[in-house]
Amino acid sequence: MTNINFKSVVIIGLGLIGSSLARAIREKEVSKTIYGIDINEENIKKCLNLKIISKGEKNLEDLKEQTDLIIICSPLSTYKEIFFQLEQYLNQDTLVTDVGSTKMSTIRDFEELKNNHHIKFVPCHPIAGLEKSGPEYGFAKLFENRFCIMTPKNNDQNSIDQIIKFWNSLGMEVQSMDAEHHDRVLAMTSHIPQLIAYSIVATASELESHLKEEVIKYSAAGFRDFTRLAGSDPIMWRDVYAKNKEAVLEMLGRFTEDLSTLQKAIRNNDASYLEKTFSSTREIRKVIEEIGQAGTFDPTESKKTK
Amino acid sequence: MTNINFKSVVIIGLGLIGSSLARAIREKEVSKTIYGIDINEENIKKCLNLKIISKGEKNLEDLKEQTDLIIICSPLSTYKEIFFQLEQYLNQDTLVTDVGSTKMSTIRDFEELKNNHHIKFVPCHPIAGLEKSGPEYGFAKLFENRFCIMTPKNNDQNSIDQIIKFWNSLGMEVQSMDAEHHDRVLAMTSHIPQLIAYSIVATASELESHLKEEVIKYSAAGFRDFTRLAGSDPIMWRDVYAKNKEAVLEMLGRFTEDLSTLQKAIRNNDASYLEKTFSSTREIRKVIEEIGQAGTFDPTESKKTK
Repeated sequence: MTNINFKSVVIIGLGLIGSSLARAIREKEVSKTIYGIDINEENIKKCLNLKIISKGEKNLEDLKEQTDLIIICSPLSTYKEIFFQLEQYLNQDTLVTDVGSTKMSTIRDFEELKNNHHIKFVPCHPIAGLEKSGPEYGFAKLFENRFCIMTPKNNDQNSIDQIIKFWNSLGMEVQSMDAEHHDRVLAMTSHIPQLIAYSIVATASELESHLKEEVIKYSAAGFRDFTRLAGSDPIMWRDVYAKNKEAVLEMLGRFTEDLSTLQKAIRNNDASYLEKTFSSTREIRKVIEEIGQAGTFDPTESKKTK
Repeated sequence: MTNINFKSVVIIGLGLIGSSLARAIREKEVSKTIYGIDINEENIKKCLNLKIISKGEKNLEDLKEQTDLIIICSPLSTYKEIFFQLEQYLNQDTLVTDVGSTKMSTIRDFEELKNNHHIKFVPCHPIAGLEKSGPEYGFAKLFENRFCIMTPKNNDQNSIDQIIKFWNSLGMEVQSMDAEHHDRVLAMTSHIPQLIAYSIVATASELESHLKEEVIKYSAAGFRDFTRLAGSDPIMWRDVYAKNKEAVLEMLGRFTEDLSTLQKAIRNNDASYLEKTFSSTREIRKVIEEIGQAGTFDPTESKKTK
């Protein structure tokens, strides 16, 4: 596979994902130059210090350079404003993609503008992340062997091909999907698990204080897995639930029904129902491990640097 | 710290925890001889092949040796039968402990018998585990820097001291707690997270088949964290919900209330409530990392041997 080769790319939003992209693009030599845009100057400074961008600006208009590819990596609530800025800014054909977790809203936001035909926007969602936020936590390997879902809408084949090559160059496998379908799948694989994690950690944080201290102390018993997710960026997730409301409420309904059934089984001492349910879920874990999407959990603290 | 030194110990139940104990006891030279009891001959064979036990029997009575310490590592539903066997078997003072996840039920089961005053039973719960089951997945370091909760009931100080030394020798910090309190804390840190993980994976496994395949494929988005827990031993967990019913139902009630509140906030587009909740949960994660109970999650598959 030959890598794609850009003269320059612009990353808008230098958080965990944006900075990881900068690292991966540099490592894989996908672009000679990488520019970064972030309203937070601290993030720009960090990325300059890390030498993963060659120039950083607070606003796109300050950049004063046209570019081959722009990747939007900021919270979903900023998209409208960013599309507006792109409208003003671009005066040559430019590939644009994003990493947002909801795609119907992304396409809606884009379609409200699109008077500037230089914008070649192919909506994407690389399925990769970590609960940490901020450029200091990014790393180039984040995208390797992970899927990137593309939800093209009225795109020319050339733009699509270029975007596929781009993600491939970072080690991702690109899958095309209808935006509505994407939002339902992700509601189940991502938005609901995340909401539940937030919810149970919130429940714990409202416990009587002595009980709460012990819940934290003995969290290695299972609770800690939820706290990892619940450590994620609050702004990013607030936006996800605003933008994917319908699919989230539908899947949440299914989940609470199933949880009520388990609750009733516990109340009624229905041990055989519990055992049957608990056995059926093992299969799914096995498949996820087999297809190499499980990640690696080390129950010790041995790799910690401190 | 000087290690405790037994002539022989017997481990009843050679699963993940039992076999990890055997490895740790051997590595830390806590006992000259380690015997294993398991109704599953396959487990005995595996442990003999791994050279972590020196003799294995299906039943305690076949062992024909008295011992210094017996550790019960089998599912909670087997405890009554095991206590009955111990009653028959022991003819000299013997320390007995266990690793069970519920302590009220353990003490109830024990108190139904206790005619044989040679049994010096100190109920314990080492807070350490992994979603895998079977002796092949065990490892000695599982207990290092983790807490062990002890819930003594009418024990002599000498037995308590010995048991504390035993867990200390494996690298654990022992904390004493009332059994009822233990069961409430663990309902929150362990039994509820586990039930929720089972529940959401069950919800996913009942989706229309094309949706289900995609949920598995794109599980790296968050869902995979739940599948890890949901890969745990079904028998062990079936027993936990039977034995800790009241505390589980209480904590489950609190959780579903909080989840309903979040659901309503999504329905009503209450972005500021969501952001506030999602920010509050970050603190708990931070504390868990600071006290060294977080484990280490690697989002890549890099350490996989296959």
